Amino acid sequence: MDRFEPVCRAISLDLPSPSLSDNRSHESRVRAALGSILGQKPLFPLKTCKYLADILPSSDYKVQTLVLDGPSGWEVAQASAKSISLPPYGLAVDLGSTTVVFYLVDLGSGETVSTLSKSNPQRVHGEDILERILFAGQNNGLEILQSEVIGLFNSSVQEIMAEGGMSPEDIFFIALAGNTTMCHFFLGLDPSHICREPYIPVVNRFDLIRPSEIGINVHPQAWLYCFPNVGSYFGGDLLAGILASGMHLKEEISMLVDVGTNAEVVLGNRDWLVACAGAAGPALEGGILSCGIRAQPGAIDRVDIDRNNLTVMFHTIDGKAPEGLCGSGIIDLLAAMFVAGLVDPTGKLVVDRDNARMQQIDREWVYVVADPHETGHGEPVYISQGDIKNLIRSKGAMYTILNVVIQSVGIGFEDIERFYVAGAFGNYIDPKKAIIIGMLPDVPLERFEGLGNAAGTGAIEALTWRKARKEVEEICNKITYLEMNVRKDFMNQLTGALFLPHTDLTRFPSVDKMVKM
Amino acid sequence: MDRFEPVCRAISLDLPSPSLSDNRSHESRVRAALGSILGQKPLFPLKTCKYLADILPSSDYKVQTLVLDGPSGWEVAQASAKSISLPPYGLAVDLGSTTVVFYLVDLGSGETVSTLSKSNPQRVHGEDILERILFAGQNNGLEILQSEVIGLFNSSVQEIMAEGGMSPEDIFFIALAGNTTMCHFFLGLDPSHICREPYIPVVNRFDLIRPSEIGINVHPQAWLYCFPNVGSYFGGDLLAGILASGMHLKEEISMLVDVGTNAEVVLGNRDWLVACAGAAGPALEGGILSCGIRAQPGAIDRVDIDRNNLTVMFHTIDGKAPEGLCGSGIIDLLAAMFVAGLVDPTGKLVVDRDNARMQQIDREWVYVVADPHETGHGEPVYISQGDIKNLIRSKGAMYTILNVVIQSVGIGFEDIERFYVAGAFGNYIDPKKAIIIGMLPDVPLERFEGLGNAAGTGAIEALTWRKARKEVEEICNKITYLEMNVRKDFMNQLTGALFLPHTDLTRFPSVDKMVKM
Repeated sequence: MDRFEPVCRAISLDLPSPSLSDNRSHESRVRAALGSILGQKPLFPLKTCKYLADILPSSDYKVQTLVLDGPSGWEVAQASAKSISLPPYGLAVDLGSTTVVFYLVDLGSGETVSTLSKSNPQRVHGEDILERILFAGQNNGLEILQSEVIGLFNSSVQEIMAEGGMSPEDIFFIALAGNTTMCHFFLGLDPSHICREPYIPVVNRFDLIRPSEIGINVHPQAWLYCFPNVGSYFGGDLLAGILASGMHLKEEISMLVDVGTNAEVVLGNRDWLVACAGAAGPALEGGILSCGIRAQPGAIDRVDIDRNNLTVMFHTIDGKAPEGLCGSGIIDLLAAMFVAGLVDPTGKLVVDRDNARMQQIDREWVYVVADPHETGHGEPVYISQGDIKNLIRSKGAMYTILNVVIQSVGIGFEDIERFYVAGAFGNYIDPKKAIIIGMLPDVPLERFEGLGNAAGTGAIEALTWRKARKEVEEICNKITYLEMNVRKDFMNQLTGALFLPHTDLTRFPSVDKMVKM
Repeated sequence: MDRFEPVCRAISLDLPSPSLSDNRSHESRVRAALGSILGQKPLFPLKTCKYLADILPSSDYKVQTLVLDGPSGWEVAQASAKSISLPPYGLAVDLGSTTVVFYLVDLGSGETVSTLSKSNPQRVHGEDILERILFAGQNNGLEILQSEVIGLFNSSVQEIMAEGGMSPEDIFFIALAGNTTMCHFFLGLDPSHICREPYIPVVNRFDLIRPSEIGINVHPQAWLYCFPNVGSYFGGDLLAGILASGMHLKEEISMLVDVGTNAEVVLGNRDWLVACAGAAGPALEGGILSCGIRAQPGAIDRVDIDRNNLTVMFHTIDGKAPEGLCGSGIIDLLAAMFVAGLVDPTGKLVVDRDNARMQQIDREWVYVVADPHETGHGEPVYISQGDIKNLIRSKGAMYTILNVVIQSVGIGFEDIERFYVAGAFGNYIDPKKAIIIGMLPDVPLERFEGLGNAAGTGAIEALTWRKARKEVEEICNKITYLEMNVRKDFMNQLTGALFLPHTDLTRFPSVDKMVKM
């Protein structure tokens, strides 16, 4: 495995027995042996030293140690008789506002041996993060939010470890990536200034934390690494994404786009990085659309329309009868409708283009994707005129943010060698369709690369590559953050992006050509 | 004050208010400001960060911080509104087997503001350290020993802080010097191999410890520094003594002698250090002599005898009626008796030289220093023939150890510019008298310097001079330890030293001259 140098190592030692000519203390004996292997004498906490007097003589000076890469370098987390030899485990966590994903990593091999995905229990206080921030400000709201996520953490650790016949104490390192607000909830830090001008988090750079300090039950000598934030709207999840993409190490210029309610963008290479985040609205995540649902069984995630006979084709997750449209399905749908002339460049439904599917529901024109007899719940699945307006506003905001960022460094989209698309549903977007609606720039498709769960991948890397924390620190120091909320050019440029694909068709030559076909 | 750079600093900050063009997190704002003052960005523990959201805006961004020199450099231990401003305190501790001395140090000024001396409660399990090691091995003996000293620690901290209207939480750093065994008891480490060949402590180098980990109640972010050991018989108390003497920084060669049941010796300069410890027996401390007592009121600490008329003159501590002889008094007495011809070079009492004072008690010849009618308890204070034999054995061992050490590096006593005399009673010894009995070498008197409570002074320096810990580490790395228990030359040389002052009078020319006068 490339870049494999984990934050926790099991090291077996066959030590020389003590004698009058070598009567070092037990601790010095172990420390010196580890020092010559690690190239640096490790710290040796009292708790770990305490049992050496038993372990060393009884094991005939053959011991297995576990060392961790702590705040000041290596430290001895455990020493035991050689025969006991589980591999050390690490836990990577993608702390999302909707879903929390736990990855159990064998730090001996670097393999992710188990994954557990859980709904974030804080959702009862609001799907929207702002609602939760308001809740945090009431009475002991912050404590409640923290205890909910810590509770989930402990029960999930218990579950994932029990599965493999292990115990929570076998986890020696945790790496956690979440956005700024989620990390503040997690650590019990007041989030109230995150959403108010001038947008001040309590903490941007978290030092290593003892999990026990916040009530997490793993090995008592374990450390928790929480990815830092660059600012209120640029959190550790995105930094983990940068790490996962590797764009900070490459000579070529890349752009990382995290698609969601907030559009988060990073542009740069190994020498420079510019970042920006701005509200794109929840439409892209499907949250507020008439028939928008999460990517769950029965969600339409792929749609196409034959531009000649207007036949609708779709695919649902797990092949279940359709119940709604998830993010990637919605983008597909709008793109297909535009290409098929069912919606005009201003976003208006062309109602007489398909009299069967264009219907009025609640006095609003809609385009029906699936009839009640096809669906799982017996209701039609459709997209409304209002949905389309919302969608265009979101995709327009997204495109404009990308454009402001590239303009800020004086380059064009064609200069970008690679576009990494990340985010809860970003990975499932068909870039071709996103280009058609003018959400992503019109560049060759092979430049797009889905990053999967980039935050999770980055968190895993923080466990398996011990220099990752330093790289993240360097990324933070290198990054220039553009505060989109205060940029005037954003509003000026947004207007042109509120069309399909854009008022300036020279920006989307491939779409122009396709539509004219 | 020379070498004043304390391990804890109070730093007031007047921070720029946040704005859209400077919307760093609270933590980053404080950390950057401290970084530019300290020359290094401090660590910022979660606990300390937590209250920044309250403190910063409410104090208009004027805050007082306390930073500590922790395991990986500076770290923020406290941040508060500017108006709250106690100086940070440190606690230096000389953890002796008999007496534990606490020094409260104002780390703003470096002054020791209060001293508290307490009897070590472990004494109920034996005055002798070996008895306590045996006790530690029985049932939960170690736990008992540890809880006794920790209990004393907490009550003493309470007492010393309450005196000044402060609380234990105002203590931010502890530096503790004790011998290897005392430190093992204190930290709950198994001492059983310290006293058995090949004499293996569990730990020689202690990393910084959280006081709370061993049940000590001070500030939750405080650190405890425990002076390291070089070996079982060469502990942190002596390392603190070296630090206090400054011999490790000088070009000239010095010798540090710690006089006690164990004779501990260090020889060297800034380039090299040789150390040795060996049993001298308890006679020098007065512990086993017929009328030996501790240095307490009523103890005879100074004695002289007119060599012509044999008049005895003595001084007692606090001027109270005599009740016994403490260490310095015993050495004075033997020296005066030898010069006055009351004891011959082989250590035999010359019983017909003073028929009044030479008496038989319990069928043994004794020399009476104070008659029953002069003493506080109505019993005579005397020294017996057996006492003298014991004393000579102890002083002979001491001298031989010094001699073995200087021979090991191929120099003579005359090459040593300075003799530091330390130890519980070492500081009170009159070097002139110690030379007469052949305990200390016959060099010009001005070369001797009492070090006072060297362990305590060294512990204080570890608080007021933050590079001290690094210096101690360097001393440990530089020191060559001679295991006296395995040296054959010791026994060979001891024989000659079992005379007053020595069989070889050319070694003690000033004594030879005086006796011949």
